[in-house]
Amino acid sequence: MTRALPVTREENFPEWYLAVVRDADMAETSAVRGCMVIKPWGWGVWELIQGELDRRIKETGHENCYFPLFIPLRFLAKEAQHVEGFAKEMAVVTHHRLKTIDGVLQVDPEAELEEPLVVRPTSETIIGDTFQRWVQSYRDLPLLINQWANVVRWEMRTRLFLRTAEFLWQEGHTAHADAAEAMDETLRMLEVYRQFCETVLAMPVVAGEKPENERFPGAVSTYSVEAMMQDGKALQAGTSHYLGTHFAEAQNIRYQTSDGQLAFCHTTSWGVSTRLVGGVIMTHGDDDGLRLPPAIAPRQVVIVPMLRDKPEDAAVLDYCEELRAELVARHGAFGPVRVLVDKKPLKSADKRWNWVRRGAPLIVEVGPRDVAGGNVTYMRRDRLRNGDKVISQSSSRGDFVAGVTALLAEIQASLFAEAKQRLEANIRSDLTSFDDIAAYFGPSTDEESDVFKGWVRVAWCKPTGAALEQVEERLKSLKLTIRNAPLDQSGSFGPCVFTGAPGVEEILVARAY
Amino acid sequence: MTRALPVTREENFPEWYLAVVRDADMAETSAVRGCMVIKPWGWGVWELIQGELDRRIKETGHENCYFPLFIPLRFLAKEAQHVEGFAKEMAVVTHHRLKTIDGVLQVDPEAELEEPLVVRPTSETIIGDTFQRWVQSYRDLPLLINQWANVVRWEMRTRLFLRTAEFLWQEGHTAHADAAEAMDETLRMLEVYRQFCETVLAMPVVAGEKPENERFPGAVSTYSVEAMMQDGKALQAGTSHYLGTHFAEAQNIRYQTSDGQLAFCHTTSWGVSTRLVGGVIMTHGDDDGLRLPPAIAPRQVVIVPMLRDKPEDAAVLDYCEELRAELVARHGAFGPVRVLVDKKPLKSADKRWNWVRRGAPLIVEVGPRDVAGGNVTYMRRDRLRNGDKVISQSSSRGDFVAGVTALLAEIQASLFAEAKQRLEANIRSDLTSFDDIAAYFGPSTDEESDVFKGWVRVAWCKPTGAALEQVEERLKSLKLTIRNAPLDQSGSFGPCVFTGAPGVEEILVARAY
Repeated sequence: MTRALPVTREENFPEWYLAVVRDADMAETSAVRGCMVIKPWGWGVWELIQGELDRRIKETGHENCYFPLFIPLRFLAKEAQHVEGFAKEMAVVTHHRLKTIDGVLQVDPEAELEEPLVVRPTSETIIGDTFQRWVQSYRDLPLLINQWANVVRWEMRTRLFLRTAEFLWQEGHTAHADAAEAMDETLRMLEVYRQFCETVLAMPVVAGEKPENERFPGAVSTYSVEAMMQDGKALQAGTSHYLGTHFAEAQNIRYQTSDGQLAFCHTTSWGVSTRLVGGVIMTHGDDDGLRLPPAIAPRQVVIVPMLRDKPEDAAVLDYCEELRAELVARHGAFGPVRVLVDKKPLKSADKRWNWVRRGAPLIVEVGPRDVAGGNVTYMRRDRLRNGDKVISQSSSRGDFVAGVTALLAEIQASLFAEAKQRLEANIRSDLTSFDDIAAYFGPSTDEESDVFKGWVRVAWCKPTGAALEQVEERLKSLKLTIRNAPLDQSGSFGPCVFTGAPGVEEILVARAY
Repeated sequence: MTRALPVTREENFPEWYLAVVRDADMAETSAVRGCMVIKPWGWGVWELIQGELDRRIKETGHENCYFPLFIPLRFLAKEAQHVEGFAKEMAVVTHHRLKTIDGVLQVDPEAELEEPLVVRPTSETIIGDTFQRWVQSYRDLPLLINQWANVVRWEMRTRLFLRTAEFLWQEGHTAHADAAEAMDETLRMLEVYRQFCETVLAMPVVAGEKPENERFPGAVSTYSVEAMMQDGKALQAGTSHYLGTHFAEAQNIRYQTSDGQLAFCHTTSWGVSTRLVGGVIMTHGDDDGLRLPPAIAPRQVVIVPMLRDKPEDAAVLDYCEELRAELVARHGAFGPVRVLVDKKPLKSADKRWNWVRRGAPLIVEVGPRDVAGGNVTYMRRDRLRNGDKVISQSSSRGDFVAGVTALLAEIQASLFAEAKQRLEANIRSDLTSFDDIAAYFGPSTDEESDVFKGWVRVAWCKPTGAALEQVEERLKSLKLTIRNAPLDQSGSFGPCVFTGAPGVEEILVARAY
C-alpha cells in the first residue's frame, strides 16, 4: 500500500507525526534550541484558531490587554508554591548590552541588570501586580482580561507544537469578589474550551478536574479538557484554574466591599496554546498527511488547473478563476468559503499531492474536459481513498458551487464523528484493580513500540497527600497518569482500584503527551 | 476655559500626551523598566490597526509566519554593520534556570547557556537563516513573508507607545531574484503604509527616502513615511528597507537561476509598530482627550442611558438596546458599526466624559424625553465644542440610524482634512541657507518649552560620508534631523542650504520623536 507519507501511523506514530508536520508545511525546527518556525500553512491554522476562540472569549465578556514579556525575579519569589511548581526552568535575562571586545561580539560584563528578568513562563505574577492597581472597589469586579502572547519554558525534550521552549497561547486572568463567582468563571471557560475543541477543531474532549498532584502551581483546583490521539494517548488540550486567594494574597489584590470592608479577590486563569495544532494533527491526520477540519483550513477548496503548455490552458485558467469567484461568494458556517487557485509552476499531480498532505478539505482538479462539460472533478480529503484507490467525484459546476458549504459542513461533521467514535470506543471501564490496569497496559518500553491502548475509566477513593503520591508512583511505573475526573460522573462507584476502599468518583487513567 | 484634561497641548505638550494616554485608558507603565501594559481600549485600537493592515499585507501577496523570539549571538556577529547600528542595547538571556539557594530565589549559576541568546530587536538574522533553507531555486522566489511579533530594544529614555523597551510590530521580510524586483517591493510596501496611515489612521504622511546616515543598519536604502504631530515635530510612522545582497551574503541566501548559476538574493524588510498608536494620539487628540478616527475606534458609537433610579429607567434601557440593535445592523466603510451601551454604575455625566476622553467618535445620550419623542441626542467627538460650549445635536432615531455610516465616514474625513491642512500649512520651503534654518528654529532648550515650528523643506547637494556627518552635526546642534527626501520632488532645485553647491533634491528637516 503506497501512501503520501514515508511512514504510517501503524509503523511509527512519533515519526509519522513529524512527517506530517514537515510534509504538510506546518512548522520546522529553528537554529534556536527548542524554538520552532511556524510556516505559512501552520500559521494560517493558528490564525483561524485565534480568531474563532477570541470571538468566544469576547462573547463571554472578556477584554484583551497586553502585559510585559519580562517578569522581575522578585515577583516570582512572592508566590513560593507557584515558582516551585514551575521547576524553575526559565529563560533569564541578566544583561542589557552586547559589546565587541578584542574583535569578538559578546555580552558586555558591565551591563548587568540590577535585578534579573525572567521571560514569562505564564503571567499570573505580572498581571497580578497590575490587577492590584486596577481593583479598588467591588464596583471594579469582576475584572475579566485575556491576552494573546508568547511564553517560554525551558523544556528539555521538545517536539514541534506539542512541547516547545517558546510557544504561543492565550491566557485569561480574572478577579472576582467571591469564591462562587470565580468558580463559575473557571467552569464557564472550561466549557468554552470544550465547545471550541469539539465544534471548531472537530476534536472531542472530556472535561474534568485534575487530581491534586496535577494542579497548576498555586491553584486551589485545576480543570482540563483531554483529547484522545490516534495512538490512544491523552493530550491535555486546555486548562482552567481556580486560584482561590493565593495569588491575591501574594500580590495584595484587595477590594473594598459594599459595606466598606477590605477583602482579597478570588482569581482564575485559563489557557490554550499552539499545542492545539499538534492535537489537530494527531486527531485527524492519516497516512496521506494532514486532514484539516474546514473551520480551521486556511484554504477550504484548492483548485488545481491541469495545464499542458497548450493553447487550451487559457480556457482552463479562466474556468478556474470563474469557479473561484463563484465559490468565495458562498457563506457557510465558517464564513465566506476560502479558495485558492494553485498556479505554481509544478506538475498538477505534484500539486494534488501537496494539498492532500496539507489537508485541504476539498481538492478540485480542472482539465479541458471539465471545461468542455461545465463540470468539476474533486476529492474529499476526509474520504480520500477506497482501499488504495483515490476517490475522485464529478459534478456539474453549478451543483458543486451550490452545495459547497453543505459539503464543507459534512466534512467537518464526519471528522468529528470519526474522532468521537474512536474516543468512545476506547475508554475501558471494566477494570477493577491496579493489577487489571497493569496487565492491560503492560510495561511501557519506549513510545515507539507502544501499541494502542486508549484510556481506562476507574473508580478511586480520591486520596490526598502521601497516599496520592503512592498512587502516582505506581501509575508512573507504567508510564500512566491520571488525566482528570470527568465532570460527567455516573453517581455510583465500585471500590477504589488502588486501595479497595469505597470509591467516591471515577477518573481517567492514560498515557499522555 | 475648562477642558476634560488637566493640561492642554499649549501648556505642555509632553505632559498633555501622557495625560491622554492615561485618561483615555490606553496604556500605563509597568513594574518592568520601559515595558508598558496596554489596556483594553488601547489594545482595541491596536487590534483594529492589525486587522486592517494585515488585510493589506495579505492582499499584496504576503503570508504570515512566526519565527523564534531568541537570536543566537553568533547570528548577530555575522552582519557587523547591522549589529553596529543597533548600538547593542539588547536584552540578553544568559541562563535557563532559577534556584533557591539559602532560601533566596536566584539565577542558578550552574545553568549558564553555552551561547547567549538575544531577545530579538528585529528578525533579519533569524529569518535570514530560515530563508537560506527555504530558497533553493528561482522558482522559490519571490519569498514574501510577514510576522506580527514583540521585539525588545533596551532604550534608555522611554515614553508610552512612542519608545518602549518591548514593543509590538509587524515585520515583513522578502527575498527576490534581482535588485529591481526587490526595490519595487520596498516601494510597494512604503505605499501600502502611506495609504494605510492616511485612509485608516486619518494621519497624513510624507513618503520619502532617508539620507545615508539615517538608514537601517545594513540597508542599501531606507524609506519612511513621516507624520507631523500637533507640536510640529515629525514622527517616523513606518519604514521600508532595500537590503541589497548584504544580508543574503552574510547568511548565504542563494538560489539557482534559470540557467543554472548560483546567485545571492536581494532582500527587503519593512515594519510599523505600536508607535502608530502614539502617532494617532498626537495627530488627533485635543484638550478634552483622544479623538479616534472611526476606522480604528473599538466602539464607534457609545450610548449612555440617562438613568435616575426611577421606573422610567427600564424604558430608557430598552430604547438604548433597540437603538444598539439597529445600529449594529448597519455596515459602513469600516464594517458593521461597533456600538456599546454603557451600563456601568456611574453617573451619566461621568460616563459622557469618560467617552469624550477616550475619543469615541459618536456619543449618544438617551433620556426619558428622547424615548418619548423617538429621538436621539448625540455629540460628534471631532466637533465637540463651539467655543467652550459642548455641541449636542438632536435627530429622530430613524434618521440617526439611517445616517450613521455616512456620519462616521464624515468624521473620518474631517479628522484627516484637519491633519492634512496642518501638515500642508506648516512645511516652510522659503529658507535658503543654514543660517535661515538656525534663525527659524532657534536654539532648542528642552522639549517642554519648544514652540510649534513645523518642518522645513530645503534643497541640498546630497553629500555623503564626512560631508554628510558635518551636516548631521550642524543640524544636531539645533536638535534637528533630516526626515526624508520626499518621493514627490519638484524637479528644479535651488542651491544646497548647507554648502551652497548646486542642489540635487529637496529634503524635510524637523525636530522629531
